[in-house]
Amino acid sequence: MTQLKLPLAALALTALPGLALAQDGPAPGVNPATDTVFILNSLLFLIGGCLVFWMAAGFAMLEAGLVRSKNVTMQLTKNMALFSLAAVFYWLIGYNLMYPLGNWAVDGVLSGVFGPGVLEAVGITAEGADDYSYASTGSDFFFQLMFCAATASIVSGTLAERIKLWPFLIFTIVLTSVIYPFQASWKWGGGFLEEMGFLDFAGSTVVHSVGGWAALTGALILGPRIGKYKDGKTIPMPGSNLALATLGCFILWMGWFGFNGGSQLAMGSIGDVADISRIFANTNAAAAGGAVAALVLTQLLFRKPDLTMILNGALAGLVAITAEPLTPGLGLATLIGAIGGVIVVFAVPFLDKLQIDDVVGAIPVHLICGIWGTVAVVLSNPEASLLTQLTGIAVVGVFTVAASAVVWIILRATMGIRVEEEDEVNGLDMAELGMEAYPEFSPS
Amino acid sequence: MTQLKLPLAALALTALPGLALAQDGPAPGVNPATDTVFILNSLLFLIGGCLVFWMAAGFAMLEAGLVRSKNVTMQLTKNMALFSLAAVFYWLIGYNLMYPLGNWAVDGVLSGVFGPGVLEAVGITAEGADDYSYASTGSDFFFQLMFCAATASIVSGTLAERIKLWPFLIFTIVLTSVIYPFQASWKWGGGFLEEMGFLDFAGSTVVHSVGGWAALTGALILGPRIGKYKDGKTIPMPGSNLALATLGCFILWMGWFGFNGGSQLAMGSIGDVADISRIFANTNAAAAGGAVAALVLTQLLFRKPDLTMILNGALAGLVAITAEPLTPGLGLATLIGAIGGVIVVFAVPFLDKLQIDDVVGAIPVHLICGIWGTVAVVLSNPEASLLTQLTGIAVVGVFTVAASAVVWIILRATMGIRVEEEDEVNGLDMAELGMEAYPEFSPS
Amino acid sequence: MTQLKLPLAALALTALPGLALAQDGPAPGVNPATDTVFILNSLLFLIGGCLVFWMAAGFAMLEAGLVRSKNVTMQLTKNMALFSLAAVFYWLIGYNLMYPLGNWAVDGVLSGVFGPGVLEAVGITAEGADDYSYASTGSDFFFQLMFCAATASIVSGTLAERIKLWPFLIFTIVLTSVIYPFQASWKWGGGFLEEMGFLDFAGSTVVHSVGGWAALTGALILGPRIGKYKDGKTIPMPGSNLALATLGCFILWMGWFGFNGGSQLAMGSIGDVADISRIFANTNAAAAGGAVAALVLTQLLFRKPDLTMILNGALAGLVAITAEPLTPGLGLATLIGAIGGVIVVFAVPFLDKLQIDDVVGAIPVHLICGIWGTVAVVLSNPEASLLTQLTGIAVVGVFTVAASAVVWIILRATMGIRVEEEDEVNGLDMAELGMEAYPEFSPS
Repeated sequence: MTQLKLPLAALALTALPGLALAQDGPAPGVNPATDTVFILNSLLFLIGGCLVFWMAAGFAMLEAGLVRSKNVTMQLTKNMALFSLAAVFYWLIGYNLMYPLGNWAVDGVLSGVFGPGVLEAVGITAEGADDYSYASTGSDFFFQLMFCAATASIVSGTLAERIKLWPFLIFTIVLTSVIYPFQASWKWGGGFLEEMGFLDFAGSTVVHSVGGWAALTGALILGPRIGKYKDGKTIPMPGSNLALATLGCFILWMGWFGFNGGSQLAMGSIGDVADISRIFANTNAAAAGGAVAALVLTQLLFRKPDLTMILNGALAGLVAITAEPLTPGLGLATLIGAIGGVIVVFAVPFLDKLQIDDVVGAIPVHLICGIWGTVAVVLSNPEASLLTQLTGIAVVGVFTVAASAVVWIILRATMGIRVEEEDEVNGLDMAELGMEAYPEFSPS
Repeated sequence: MTQLKLPLAALALTALPGLALAQDGPAPGVNPATDTVFILNSLLFLIGGCLVFWMAAGFAMLEAGLVRSKNVTMQLTKNMALFSLAAVFYWLIGYNLMYPLGNWAVDGVLSGVFGPGVLEAVGITAEGADDYSYASTGSDFFFQLMFCAATASIVSGTLAERIKLWPFLIFTIVLTSVIYPFQASWKWGGGFLEEMGFLDFAGSTVVHSVGGWAALTGALILGPRIGKYKDGKTIPMPGSNLALATLGCFILWMGWFGFNGGSQLAMGSIGDVADISRIFANTNAAAAGGAVAALVLTQLLFRKPDLTMILNGALAGLVAITAEPLTPGLGLATLIGAIGGVIVVFAVPFLDKLQIDDVVGAIPVHLICGIWGTVAVVLSNPEASLLTQLTGIAVVGVFTVAASAVVWIILRATMGIRVEEEDEVNGLDMAELGMEAYPEFSPS
Repeated sequence: MTQLKLPLAALALTALPGLALAQDGPAPGVNPATDTVFILNSLLFLIGGCLVFWMAAGFAMLEAGLVRSKNVTMQLTKNMALFSLAAVFYWLIGYNLMYPLGNWAVDGVLSGVFGPGVLEAVGITAEGADDYSYASTGSDFFFQLMFCAATASIVSGTLAERIKLWPFLIFTIVLTSVIYPFQASWKWGGGFLEEMGFLDFAGSTVVHSVGGWAALTGALILGPRIGKYKDGKTIPMPGSNLALATLGCFILWMGWFGFNGGSQLAMGSIGDVADISRIFANTNAAAAGGAVAALVLTQLLFRKPDLTMILNGALAGLVAITAEPLTPGLGLATLIGAIGGVIVVFAVPFLDKLQIDDVVGAIPVHLICGIWGTVAVVLSNPEASLLTQLTGIAVVGVFTVAASAVVWIILRATMGIRVEEEDEVNGLDMAELGMEAYPEFSPS
C-alpha cells in the first residue's frame, strides 16, 4: 500500500487504456471514464474501510473469548474504547503526521476542528476534485483510520487480564496519534523506507509488527499474570468462550479482504480489479493454509487438534500474506500462510518458556508472522531485496520498541500500569468496572 | 434522504459533467455513462441495504445481551419475527403508502401478490428503464424496507422482559405497514415536511425518533418490570451477556455506514461519492465521540467506566449524526456524537427516576438523541431553520405517540399486552416459549 | 448461475446497449465501457464471494449454538477446518474438475502450485484480459470457492455430536475436491444438465441438496446419537446457546444476498443490476416468508412459537428461493419461502420418526427445501420444465448419495467414523480435543 497519490493516480490512468484516446475527445475534467475511475477508487476505500472497521469487532470477540470470564467486560470496554480513541486521535494528529508532505491534509489540525478539515467540500464537482483526481479524501481518510485502529487492537489482547484501563488507553492515544503514523509515514507517507524500496503491501510490518512490538514491550514491562508461571511450568488459563473467539477469527478473516484488497488503492481499471481479485484469492488461501497447518501440526505434536491454535494459525496466515498478497500464486500464498501457522504452533509455547505472557497469542501472530511475511515478499516479488526487507523490519522494530518502552515506563512511573494483586485475582471486571459480563452464570 | 426521484435523478445527471456533452453524442438511452450512473446508484442501495439489514442482527444481539437470561429466547424470537413481519407488511402496504404519488409503486397491492409487483421486469434494457432512469426499483425497495424494519427493531428493546409476544408483533405490523410509512411520506414521500424545508438526511426523526416515541408510549402503557422500582429506588437488572451486547453495538456501528451513506441515494458522480465518503467519516467520528464521551463521563461521575453506557454512547452518537451526516466537518461530527453520549449518561437514570422502564436504553438513544440530532442540523447546514426542525420533530412526535397509543390501548383492551406476573418472574422463555436460550447453564 | 463464460459474456455485452454503437468508435479493447463492465462484473464476484465467505461463520455459529455445550469446541473446530480444507482442495482439484472445458483453469494443477496458476498475471491490461473479457479469473475463482465450501458446511451440522473429527474432514476433502465439483460441472460447467435445460440459478440442487444428500447419507450410516430415540420417542437435546444460533441465522441470511445476487454473474448493465436488485428483494422476501410461516405454524400446532423452527424456517425460505430468485415477484417469492418454512416444521419431526438424527435440521432445510425450490422454478420461469427439473434433482441425488455412501462406508471400514460410546456421552470436546468451549460454566 503506497500512499504517494500522484504516481499511483497516474498509474491508474495509464492502466485504463481508453483514457489516452479519450483525451482527444471531451474537454478535461468532463470525461466520463475519469469520473468512473474516481468513483470506483473511492468505493474501494469505502468498502475496504468498512471491512477493516469490522476487524475491530473481530479483535473484540477474539479477545473476549480468550480471556477468563472475570475479565470479559474489561476486555470489551478496552476494545470499544481503543477504537473510539483511535478514531479521535488519528484524525486530530495521526493522519496529518502520517502524510506530512501536505498533499491532502495540511489543514487538518488548524481548520479541522469545526471546519471541513481533512475532508473535501460537500458536493465537489469534477473540476473541484481536479487536484485530487485519484479518489475522494474522505474515503482515503476513512480507510487509513481503520488501519491505525487495527494496530491498536493488536496490543490489547496481549496485555489482557492485568493492565489498568486508563494507562492502556493513554498508550493507545500515543500509539495512534504518534507512534503508528510516524513510522507509517516512512513507508506510506513517501518516507525513506519507501525510497529505499522496502515493500510492505498492506502492512505486515507497518501495521502488524508495530502492534506486535508495542504488545511485546508492554508484556515485558508489565510482567506475566499472577500464577501463569509456577516452578518453570506454564499453567493453562483457558479462554472462557471459544465460540466468541471463533466468531472473532471469522470476522477478522472477512475483514482482511478489505485490509489487503483495499490496499491495492485503485479499482478503476481492469488491471486493478484483476489484481484485487488475486489479492482476495491469495488472502483466503493463506488463511486456509495457516489453519490447516496448525490443525495438522497440533494433531501430530499433541495428538489432539487445538482450536485456539487453528484460529491463530488462520490469523498467522493472514498476517503473513499481508506484506505481499498480490504477486504470489495460490500455491505460494497457501504455503506462506501455512508457514505462518507452523510458526504460531511453536512460538506460543516458546514465549511461555521465556515467561512472556501473551494472553491471546498476538505476538506470535502479528509480530513474528509479520516479520515472516515481510521477508517472504522476496519469494514472489522480483523487486524485493532481502536486505532492504530486513532493514525495514529492524528500523520499524527498533523505533517501535524504543518509543513504546518510553511510554510504558513513564506510565508505570506516574500512574502505574498494573492492577492490584487482589483485583487481578478477583478479576478486573468487578474490581475496575463493577460489572460482570455474564452475571448470571457462576464459574464452576 | 429524499425520495423525490425526479429532482434527484436530475441532480445526479447534472452532477456528472460528461452528460451534458454526451447528449450530443449517442442516441438517448444508449449512453454508457448513463448506464454506469444507474448501476452505481443501484449498487449503493444494494450495499447500503445489506448493511442496514445487518443492523437487524445488531439489535437482536444488543437486546439479547442486555436482557436477563430467562428472557433471551423471547428477545431473539421477537427480533427475528419483527424483521420478517416488517418485510412482509412493508411490501404489502407500507411501501405503497409511503410513496403515494405513484411514481413507482402504484401497482404494488393490486398486481404485486403474484406478479412482478413493485419490481421492474426481468432484464430491463436501458430503454425499458427510461422511466426509472435513476436507479433500479428493486434496489430502492430493498433499501427502504430495511429502514422500516430498523424502526420496528427499536421498539422491542424497551419493552423487553414483560410484553407478550403476539401483541408486540401485531403492533409491529401496524407500525411497519401504517405508522412508519405514513409519517415517512411527509418527508421522504415528498409530503408537507419536505415542502416546508424540514431536514432529516437519514432519519434521526423519521426513523429513530419514531421508533423511540412508539417505545416510550408502549413503556408508559405497559408499565415497568416487576421489582424494577422499589421505594423510589431503581433496582439494577444487569444484562446477561455483555459480549453479545458489545457485538450488537459493533454490528449496528457497521450497519450505520450503509444507513447514512446509502441515504445519499446516488453514487454515480464524483460529487456523490465524495459526499458518501464524508458521510462515512462523519458517521464514524460521531460514534467514536459518543463512546468517548460516555467513557470519560462515567469515569468522572461514577469513578468506574460503564460498558453499557459506552455502547449506548456510541449508538447515541450514531443516531445524533443521522439527521445531517454530510455537512459537518469531522470535529463537529465528533462533537455532535459526544453530546449524544452525554445525553445518554444523564437520560438513562432520569428515565428511571420517572419510573419509565426502558430495558436497553432505546429511548435515550433513539428518541432523545434523535431529537438532538435533528436540532443539530442547524449547526452545519445553512438551509436548516431551527423552527422548521422543531416543527418536524413535534409533528412526527405527536402523530407517532397518538397513533401508537391508540394501538397499544386497543391491544391492552382486547388481548392484553402484559404477561402474567408469575410468568414475568419465571422468565418469558419458559412461560411463553418453553425454551431456554442457555439451558445448560444454571443462573447463580 | 451458469458458468458458460462465453455466452454469458456475450449476453453481458449485448445487454449494455451502448456497446453496439461503441464498436464503431474506439479500437477494440480500449473502450471505457467495456472496462467498466469488466470491473463491475468482477466487483460483483468479490462482494458476493465475501458475503458467501461470511456464511461459513454463519454455519459455525448456528451449529455451535444448536449442539450441547460439551460438543461446541468440536463443532467450531470442524467448521473452521472444513472451510480451510475446502479452500485448499477446491483450488488443487475441484475448480479444475468443475470447468473441465479448460476455458480458464487448465493450468491449475500443473503450474498452479508455485506459479500464478488459476489466476491471471499481475496487472493485466485490457489487451491481456481480452481472452477473459467477462470478469477477472481470480474473482470468479474466489466466488466459486465459497459455494463449494458452503456445500461442505451443510454436512457438519447434521452429523454433529457423534462423528470423529478426521473421518469427517476426509469426507470434506472428497466432497470439495470431487463430489461437489463433478456434479456441479453438469450444470455450471456446461455439462448435460445445462444442455437439457435444467434450471438452478444459484444452487438449490447443485449446492444445497448436494450438502443435504451427503448429510443424509452420513446420518444413515452413522446412526443417531446415543439416547436420542428411546422406546419410539424422540428425546429433546436442546442446543446450548440460542443467541449464537440466531446470530448464525442472521449471518446466513446476510450472506445469501451474495449467494443469490452474485449468481447473476454480471453487473455491468442496467438489466443486470436491476436483476440483482430483484434477486436481493426476492431473497429477503423468501426468508421472511419462511420465518413467518414457521412462527405462525408452530404457534398453531404447538401453541408456542419455536425459535429454532423460526430460524430454520428463514433458512428454508432462503434455500427454496435459491433455484430461481430472479423471475418471481415479491408475492410469489414470499410464498415459495413460506412453503419452505412449512416443510421444515413438518419435516423435522418426520425425520425423527424415521430415527434419522439431524442435529441442526440441515436435511429439512437444505435437502428437502432444496428440492422444493428446484421444483418451484416452474412457477415463475416459463423456460422451466417440471420433468427436467425432477430429472436434475434425481440425477444429482442419486450420484451424491452413491458417491457419499462409498466414501462413508470406506471410512467406516478403515478408520471408523463414530466416537466411542463413552466419549460421546462425555462430550467430544474433552474426549477428542481436551478443550471445553465454556470451561468456567458448569452445566446445570
